[in-house]
This record gives sequence, structure tokens and C-alpha cells, in this order.
Amino acid sequence: MTPRVVIVGAGFGGLAAAQALKRAPVEVTIVDRHNYHLFQPLLYQVATASLSPAEIAQPIRSIVKYQRNTHVLLDDVVGIDNDVREVRTKSGRPIPFDYLILATGTRHSYFGHDEWEGDAPGIKTVDDATRLRAKILLAFERAEVESDPSKRAQLLTFVIVGGGPTGVEMAGAIAELARKSIRDDFRKIMPGSTRIILVEAGPRLLPSFPASLSAEAKRVLEAMHVEVRLGVPVTDISADRVVLGSGDKAETISAQTTMWAAGVRSSPVGEWLQVATDRAGRIPVKPDFSLSGSPNIFVVGDAASLTDARGKVLPGVAPVAKQAGKYVARVIRAKIAGKPAPRPFVYCDYGNLAAIGRTNAVADFGWIRLSGFLGWILWSAAHIYFLIGFRNRFVVAASWAWSYLTYQRGARLITGRDDERGASPEPLS
Amino acid sequence: MTPRVVIVGAGFGGLAAAQALKRAPVEVTIVDRHNYHLFQPLLYQVATASLSPAEIAQPIRSIVKYQRNTHVLLDDVVGIDNDVREVRTKSGRPIPFDYLILATGTRHSYFGHDEWEGDAPGIKTVDDATRLRAKILLAFERAEVESDPSKRAQLLTFVIVGGGPTGVEMAGAIAELARKSIRDDFRKIMPGSTRIILVEAGPRLLPSFPASLSAEAKRVLEAMHVEVRLGVPVTDISADRVVLGSGDKAETISAQTTMWAAGVRSSPVGEWLQVATDRAGRIPVKPDFSLSGSPNIFVVGDAASLTDARGKVLPGVAPVAKQAGKYVARVIRAKIAGKPAPRPFVYCDYGNLAAIGRTNAVADFGWIRLSGFLGWILWSAAHIYFLIGFRNRFVVAASWAWSYLTYQRGARLITGRDDERGASPEPLS
Repeated sequence: MTPRVVIVGAGFGGLAAAQALKRAPVEVTIVDRHNYHLFQPLLYQVATASLSPAEIAQPIRSIVKYQRNTHVLLDDVVGIDNDVREVRTKSGRPIPFDYLILATGTRHSYFGHDEWEGDAPGIKTVDDATRLRAKILLAFERAEVESDPSKRAQLLTFVIVGGGPTGVEMAGAIAELARKSIRDDFRKIMPGSTRIILVEAGPRLLPSFPASLSAEAKRVLEAMHVEVRLGVPVTDISADRVVLGSGDKAETISAQTTMWAAGVRSSPVGEWLQVATDRAGRIPVKPDFSLSGSPNIFVVGDAASLTDARGKVLPGVAPVAKQAGKYVARVIRAKIAGKPAPRPFVYCDYGNLAAIGRTNAVADFGWIRLSGFLGWILWSAAHIYFLIGFRNRFVVAASWAWSYLTYQRGARLITGRDDERGASPEPLS
Repeated sequence: MTPRVVIVGAGFGGLAAAQALKRAPVEVTIVDRHNYHLFQPLLYQVATASLSPAEIAQPIRSIVKYQRNTHVLLDDVVGIDNDVREVRTKSGRPIPFDYLILATGTRHSYFGHDEWEGDAPGIKTVDDATRLRAKILLAFERAEVESDPSKRAQLLTFVIVGGGPTGVEMAGAIAELARKSIRDDFRKIMPGSTRIILVEAGPRLLPSFPASLSAEAKRVLEAMHVEVRLGVPVTDISADRVVLGSGDKAETISAQTTMWAAGVRSSPVGEWLQVATDRAGRIPVKPDFSLSGSPNIFVVGDAASLTDARGKVLPGVAPVAKQAGKYVARVIRAKIAGKPAPRPFVYCDYGNLAAIGRTNAVADFGWIRLSGFLGWILWSAAHIYFLIGFRNRFVVAASWAWSYLTYQRGARLITGRDDERGASPEPLS
């Protein structure tokens, strides 16, 4: 019988594994709770109204349509039964496997403060991004009709928690949205009165970059009037305020819109497998990404915790997930063919990029560091290159060119507020 | 004091009025429950995954940004107080007016069967369209995992109620989606097994077109394997079936996805104004679109009922709304300037167009009738020309070119199903 490979999650890791199994003598099943593969690095541009969801998401079925050994299932995984080798799903249809690749990624971590999630949403899915987009755009709409100056200031204050790439990119994008894109659109609020505050508990922005680029990112953001607050922890969040620090030094920021870009934890793979995880919920795996004691189960991407053969702790980024997915496909092919296992996994780091607004980015390739407009050109080229699907690349490139030339945003829609009869359920009060 | 003109609704009629008041000595306020102007004629392409919402919707604020006498308010109108000349809103902030233009359009009419709405949704808003898109795409996903053949057939049966332009365009678009775009994407369901049924109670499709084009539309749809049922009324709709006719001739179609394109009624303007309406809820207006007895209140577009100076009953289409909006702006300018009223309104009919699938359309310009590929080229050119905003035109043209060349759909996303934590609430059962 043809060996069955089940892949849970069609993110970068899962999809890379599936594609690398294209010509293998196996039957591949990809299970995902969404029908699309999402190019997550650009999701912040959906949340800030630059791109449409369809520009960075592609149906999984389209991607593997000519890969005849591959099935796609839209379902939610709820557990794994390792004894009978079955994945359990929400629909109730179990999926039997001979090899299992878990590529389930992460969700947000509120460091024990799950109650903050409603008031400080993060962005991991398309629905997260369109919801946040509506929240940001509605803040301006509400400010426009608000007569109380302190309430208006609160509506025009945006706090981004977390100074990693997502936080930096969000802060830059909101600054441009407020100060450039919608500058002439409102009659009462002044773009200059928008406050954007980026809070990072650590000593610098972009901790995974060299310190010189962290400083550069801070300088560029401050030139865009973003207030960068380093070394201060967020201690409380509610619907209309964020508290920084504690005790005598506690500071309360009155803000209607708070976004979370601070921490992630692994999806519940640890629970499914009933194995111990690290603090971020990630599963420690063997050098071939298999589970200790279960050589046919692999964990790749953000859900796995591994130090590679050269001693590098693998970061939770897309290239690691892709390379790991591909590697695991090779491991499985070797096992099936009865050949020796491939050489130990070594992560090939091509560099780190983060965009800051419309024309600026920092790039670290190890041997060279770039920032400014040249960095942004590189950032754009890299992101378009890695976008799956010709149409998406083309449309995104066109959108960016248009935004660049006109400062306009193409996707400034407040959606998802209609009830079934088309009325907006929530009054604009 | 500058006269205040309040426009309710930023559809074709309201926006045309606002733009025609650009240089008038008035203060214009546009109130809409959405922050965008929607190019409704292409909404069916969002519902069938060809276009993204942002490609056919543009923020109202962007459109009038350089029109300094114009304010935009995001709010729901709940009533009109003609005595004190105020529009009442959901937010509780009344909007005083000297002149009022009501351009509130239509919603669906289920001919006394409002209980059908949940099972046979129509498309009027972006949220309607993305919900219907998810429903259509989910039907295929569910069919792929369904083992019971009769249940699978039911999942692959799509009924469109109403043979006007929207129904014809939806039927053609779903036929192409099923038989071309996703043909190679599924492993178990066969594209040929999809049934698409277009039901029209009247004797022919496209009743507003000449009979020869109605026949042509039917022929083209049937060549695309759409079943066209004429002269049969829908007598019942529930979640998994549609009943046609009654008594001995009653026929039950087992179908999971039913769409409503049959009737519209006016938004509740009649109620707000406490005036009598026609059966479709439209307000009979005087030849200058003003309300009998209230010369400062105008109703334009689908909410108005009027026979023009040449005896033509105005149809509920975008060009009528635009021309009426423009005309009312002229009436108001004349009143303010103390000049005589403009000449009576005459609707200038440039023709009728309806697309049938990817390469076919029917076009009626009175003096010439076209169908086939040439009709489609005209249809495309007209729709792109009338799309507001350079980027939208450009992106839509690119999307169509890409779809035309590859048969692919760019926006095949199932969204809106996530709850706050990213899990899909509805199991795929």
C-alpha cells in the first residue's frame, strides 16, 4: 500500500514539505482550517489597508492542483491518536497516516494575560487582519465626529506592543496611513494629532538584527513621529488604555486602539502529542525534526524547537520553516526508499529584512547591512519574489507602485460589521 | 449662512449629486453606513471569487477629498424629522439640513417570504458578497469529503432565483467557476456533476432586453450547462431544497446553495418620511425628484419612482441614479442662485449590458444589438471605464486579463468563519 503522509498546516513549512513530496511514491494529505496559504509577512499590509487579502493568500488547492498524489482537506485538527496512527478532526472524520508532519505554526501569547486579547488583537489570520483594519479605520471615523478633545486624542492614539519586525512594520505603516494617505480625507481631525507609540520591553527594537540597524530603525520611526518606548513592560491593557511599568513609575496611556505584536506561542501540538514543550509551547525535536520515540512524526516551523547541526538555534521565521519542510520530505523519501538518512539539517540564513514605512527598510545579510531606500527596494523585491503565484506577485507589485506614487491605500474598507440584513450592528458612538 | 445639503447614501445617485455640488456655495454632508462607495454591478464577481472587495469599492472620503465643501459621516440613518429639518442617526447625533437628497437604494425583496433570506441570500453589500463566496466555495469543499452520493449531489447543486442581469451573471460565473477554474483542484468531485439552475418566474431571461438577446442569453447559458427554468415561480426555499410551482406540478430541487436575485424593494425611506410608496417601497416624486409638499427633499435612484418628461418609466439602474443625482444638484444650485429651474429631467439611455461567463455578453444600444465576444469586450470596457479610481480600473483590468488567460480566480478565499481565536466555529460536517 502507498504510504500515507499527512501534513497538518499549509503555512510555509507544510507547503514546502508537500511540494517536495510531489514525485514521491506517497499519498499526501494536507489538512488546514483555512482554504488558503497565507503569505504572513505581508499580513500587516492588509491590516493597514495597503493590500487586499486575496493579494497575499492563495487557495491551497490551486497551489497543488497538478500534484496528483496530494489531497487537500479543509478541517480543524483536534488531536492525534498515535496508537492507531490517526489525526482526529472537528468534522469527526479521522485521517489515518503512516508519516505525520505537524506544521501548525503559532498563535499569540499574552504572557499569562489572555484577557488582553480582546483589547489588543494581534494578526495571524486574514480575519484578524480585516478586523484590525476596520478597528483602525473606525478610530479615525469616530475621532472625526468626536467633540470632546480628550476623547478625540484617545481615539487618535495607537499603541503597538512589541518591537520585533511585525511591531516595527505596523508602526511605520500606521504612521504613513495617518500622516500621508488620509491626510486630506478628514475635515476636523488633524493628521499631526495622531499619536503612534511603539512599546518594547527589551532594550532595543528588532532584537534579531545587529544593534546598528536597531538604532537606524528607531531613528527612522522617530522621524515619522512614532514614539518609541524601549525597556518598559506593558503591565495592563483595557479597552481605552495601556499601562506601562509599575509602582511609582507606572504610566497610563489613554488609547483606543492597541495592537499586539509581542509574543507568540506554539499551536496546541504539545497537547495533541502529550509531550513536554518549552515555555513557548514548542516541541523539542530530534535533528531530523522527528519526535523522540515516534520516528514517523515530524514537527517543523514555528511549532518545533531545535538547534541545528552547526549549533544555531532555529528562529521562528519563514525560511526556517520552508527549509525544514523540504528536509523532512527528504527524510521521508529516504526512509521509504530504504536509503540512508540525509545529512543533518543546517539552516541556511539568507538574511533578515524589515520594512519601515513606504520607502525605508533595514536589511541584514551578515556580510552586508543596508538601510534606507536601497533596503526598501531589496525588501520589496524579496517579498514579491517569494509571493506564491504569478498574479499575486503582479498585483502586489502594481499596488505598491501605485501606493508609492500616490500615497494612496487601495484597500481602505471597513467590512465585517454588517449583520445579515446589511445594517451595521455597532453604533458609531 | 451657507445652505446645508445632506445626502443620505453614497451610491451612484448620492455620489453624483455630491460631485455636481463641488463648486456650489453649499456645505455638503454625505452620510453612509459604509465607508466606501461600491461599484455594485461587479459585486457578483466578488461573490464568485474573481475580484477582491477593494477592487470595486473605494473610500467615500478618498473620492471627495479635494472637495473642500464636503463632509463624510459614517453613520446609520434611522429617521427624518421634517419639522425641524434634521436627519436622525443611530449614533444619536442629528444632522440638520436645508436640502436633503435621499439616495438610499434598495435591499432584497422576498415577496412576503422574508424567512427565505437566510437560506437564499442576495448580494447588495461587500459583506453579503464575501459571505456568499464562502458559502459557494464551502459547498465544493464539503462535497469533496462527502461519501453519500445524494448528499454530494445536493452540495453540488446551485439554484439562482431571478433571471435579470444579476441572476444571469451569477449563473454564468458559477458555471465557469465549477467547470473551468476549479476543475483540477479537487480529487473526488467531478466538475461535470455540478448542477446550476437558473429559475425565472417570467417567460424569458433579461426582461429589460429585447427578446432576441433574451433567447441568446438562454442559449449561451445552456451551452455552459446551466439549466434555465422559465415561467416557474419559486414557492418555497429552505436550507437544502427549493420548491418550484405548486400543486400537482410542484417540483422539489435538492440544493445546498440558493441565491436570491429576484426582487428588490426600496430602503425604508417611505417610513422615514411617512409618505405612501409604491409596491416596491419606492417614493413617487415630482418631475424634479422632490417630494410632493416638501420641495427641499429629493429622492433619487432606486428609491424613487418617476416617469420622465418623455414618458419613460425610469428603471432601477446605475445610469438613472447618476443622471438624477446630477440633475438634483442643478435644481438645488438654481434654487440657491434664485434662477429658474432647469429643464425637465429626461433619462438618456446609453444601453443595457449583461455578461454571461468569461467571454460572452449581451448588449442592447437600441440602434444596435450585440452578443458574443464582441459584446463581452464592450461590457468589459464599459465596466472598467465607469469604475471609479485609476487603481481600481487598472487592477480590475489586470485581474480580468489574468482570469481570461488562465481561467484562474484570484480571490478564492473562504473568510469570515474564524472566531476571535482563529478557530473555525462551524465544523465541516
